[in-house]
Amino acid sequence: MAMDAKKLSAKERIVLVSAERFRSKGYHGVGLSEILEAADVPKGSLYHHFPNGKADVALAAADLASHEMMRIIDDSFSGAGSPREGVTTLCFKLAKLFDLFDRKDGCPVSTVLFDAPDNMIFRNKAKEVFNDWISCIRRHGEQLGLPSQDAFDLAEMTLIALEGAWILARARESSDLLRKLPQRLFSSAG
Amino acid sequence: MAMDAKKLSAKERIVLVSAERFRSKGYHGVGLSEILEAADVPKGSLYHHFPNGKADVALAAADLASHEMMRIIDDSFSGAGSPREGVTTLCFKLAKLFDLFDRKDGCPVSTVLFDAPDNMIFRNKAKEVFNDWISCIRRHGEQLGLPSQDAFDLAEMTLIALEGAWILARARESSDLLRKLPQRLFSSAG
Repeated sequence: MAMDAKKLSAKERIVLVSAERFRSKGYHGVGLSEILEAADVPKGSLYHHFPNGKADVALAAADLASHEMMRIIDDSFSGAGSPREGVTTLCFKLAKLFDLFDRKDGCPVSTVLFDAPDNMIFRNKAKEVFNDWISCIRRHGEQLGLPSQDAFDLAEMTLIALEGAWILARARESSDLLRKLPQRLFSSAG
Repeated sequence: MAMDAKKLSAKERIVLVSAERFRSKGYHGVGLSEILEAADVPKGSLYHHFPNGKADVALAAADLASHEMMRIIDDSFSGAGSPREGVTTLCFKLAKLFDLFDRKDGCPVSTVLFDAPDNMIFRNKAKEVFNDWISCIRRHGEQLGLPSQDAFDLAEMTLIALEGAWILARARESSDLLRKLPQRLFSSAG
């Protein structure tokens, strides 16, 4: 567990270790007992903070991952001279993260929130998180001079390309595709 | 079960119902007993055809889905006058399929084969299947006059975009994004 456990509350530890485990093994692949042990908290403490158990933990883990992604987007665009520069930095930062995740882990949102397909709360959370990321990229695109519709199209297509490339990157265990995305996004396919 | 059970062998029934269930609920979400009941076969029959049980069934289901996808790609490009026309038909066919799947199901390959992240056989199968799809689209692109490298870039980017758009489409329960892909793939983002 790459954190100073003493500085984090029980709740924070639960969410942090869950985010790590879910990303790597999916929602069904992680047991509650594994989370309790890794976070070093008793069962009662988990249910105190998350009355619905693992389902609530998964939503909190998705929120954590979402905030982290928004920070990465903001960092990528801060100081970017153009939308293309911002998107390029974003793709390279995520390629680095993919490598850091051992070239294996999934998107922390889609791996978790689609694992229980009939759960409408999960599905709506996934929709909310993806829309937040799109809005964030769009805002940066607008600030860099893109008309609103163009900024939206760029943001939505960037997210689509990142999610799709991440899947293929997992299969190949290589981040090359993520690094190739900017040139492909900014040139016509045909 | 949308099939004439009498015309299919036990093995075929197992693979067909498994492909349906996995696509909708993921690898961990489907139990062996559910497969046996839906396929109407005894446990011994399943282990006769698939000695490693559910893991073998998942590989066979991925193969089935892969062949179906290759057929859809071939159909989309047969009679297409240009790569753009072929890709457009492909995106629209998959949008229809997504709607037919109740706007909820995942990619039959990625939902299943990434659900057991440490399983190298699954990961290699995913890589093989994705590469087959890319080769198939590339071949059609070349036949329609694209230089080899351009055909490869178009094929890889089309697959990336389809996988990513499918994820976002699931979250939104709408196939609109899949139908919007061709115009986005064939125009520069910035």
